[in-house]
Amino acid sequence: MQASIAIESTPAVQYLLRLGDTCLILSQRIAEWSGHAPILEEDIALSNMALDLIGQARAVLTHAGRIEGLGHDEDQLAFLRDEKDYRNLTLVELPRGDFAFTVLRNAMVATLMKLLWERLRDSSDAELAGIAGKAVKEARYHQQHAADWVVRLGDGTEESRRRIEAALADLWRYTPEMFESDAVDEAAAAAGLGPRWSELEAPWRAEMRTILGEAALVEPKEAAFRSTGKKGVHTEHMGYILAEMQHLQRSFPGGVW
Amino acid sequence: MQASIAIESTPAVQYLLRLGDTCLILSQRIAEWSGHAPILEEDIALSNMALDLIGQARAVLTHAGRIEGLGHDEDQLAFLRDEKDYRNLTLVELPRGDFAFTVLRNAMVATLMKLLWERLRDSSDAELAGIAGKAVKEARYHQQHAADWVVRLGDGTEESRRRIEAALADLWRYTPEMFESDAVDEAAAAAGLGPRWSELEAPWRAEMRTILGEAALVEPKEAAFRSTGKKGVHTEHMGYILAEMQHLQRSFPGGVW
Repeated sequence: MQASIAIESTPAVQYLLRLGDTCLILSQRIAEWSGHAPILEEDIALSNMALDLIGQARAVLTHAGRIEGLGHDEDQLAFLRDEKDYRNLTLVELPRGDFAFTVLRNAMVATLMKLLWERLRDSSDAELAGIAGKAVKEARYHQQHAADWVVRLGDGTEESRRRIEAALADLWRYTPEMFESDAVDEAAAAAGLGPRWSELEAPWRAEMRTILGEAALVEPKEAAFRSTGKKGVHTEHMGYILAEMQHLQRSFPGGVW
Repeated sequence: MQASIAIESTPAVQYLLRLGDTCLILSQRIAEWSGHAPILEEDIALSNMALDLIGQARAVLTHAGRIEGLGHDEDQLAFLRDEKDYRNLTLVELPRGDFAFTVLRNAMVATLMKLLWERLRDSSDAELAGIAGKAVKEARYHQQHAADWVVRLGDGTEESRRRIEAALADLWRYTPEMFESDAVDEAAAAAGLGPRWSELEAPWRAEMRTILGEAALVEPKEAAFRSTGKKGVHTEHMGYILAEMQHLQRSFPGGVW
């Protein structure tokens, strides 16, 4: 059994892990649809989105490993950390749910990522700026595709509307975590690495209101609840994801069979 | 619960279903690796291969539905047939196995598909010829990528060699089914729709011998066993694949949520 790697948690590394892990874990959840989507065309669309997200995660984790300076590569960072060292938004670790849940979550995350990648194109870190330049095009497409589905389900049958409303009620309380700022954000902003995520709140809410409005959905009220995935405190679902993801690397260190 | 559709089994439709279903079911097995491959790079490569195969299956099933002339679209053909109406090679429905099993099966199937698509470019059916023109490029890449892995594992550690040898012993007995010809093949050859699959045996064996030779693997002896997936008689594994694939369409006919 392979031991976990220890992470050197500078603010810059943590900032990058929040970004890379959010892509990585969402890609896992979306990939669970492979072979299970309601229609073949959508099976392909979701698989493509999962692929884009893994690609983004690889680029960001590779870069995080370089900045950390301990020789950790993308696979070690993806597969050999302890749960507390994953820094994804709690939103992306929630079980995949039904198709309505999936497309609404995708719309919420893709809108955030699009805004974040847009800002990261101006990062003082040239490598990160380069990753962002490619990723922003993918995130725009993800947002558009997911938003189209949210509108289609909101404006569809009685059953599809019931399901998208239920998804909205379930997912919306994970919104505030996206926009909480802390010392990691302050350090990133000061160094020009990237924006405080709180700076993305106003444009995110504006874009989501447009999407929800077209779907004739009402934005839920703000709840007091705060999820904490970005700080490394995860839901019970995270352990299962990691068990599946890490199984091969943990059991057979470095083995590729 | 949605009822199954009845298939109008003309030889031409069956010939196309053998092709389309082999792509469809292998894509399901490969997609099971999403999020579980030993390294991120390979996770992406396998997901891309699964996507290519779903794309090929969609094109062929759509065309099969048109030729059948009963108004069945790709989704009805993919999701609403009875088990006996799926005509894939048994080889592709076997459980995914370990990584060695996966790459060897991929090499075997991709070599067959490459040879088949090459011939289908000259089909008297212009639509099928067009599908083949695109698919052959994908199959060539699949073959090369899988063959590289077979060689790497054969030439790797003691453990990787033990695993690829075990995979070869397990998989090889499903080879003869690929090259059995029957009335479906004869009709396809007579109409210029496509070659008898038996015509592909000599080049397939030559290419596989090259791959196995580079991996220092010995081609197993021919067994008396004959698998029968192409005739609609499947292993016990097929029911589980279909249960997963068909669940949404069967439970909520036409529903996309």
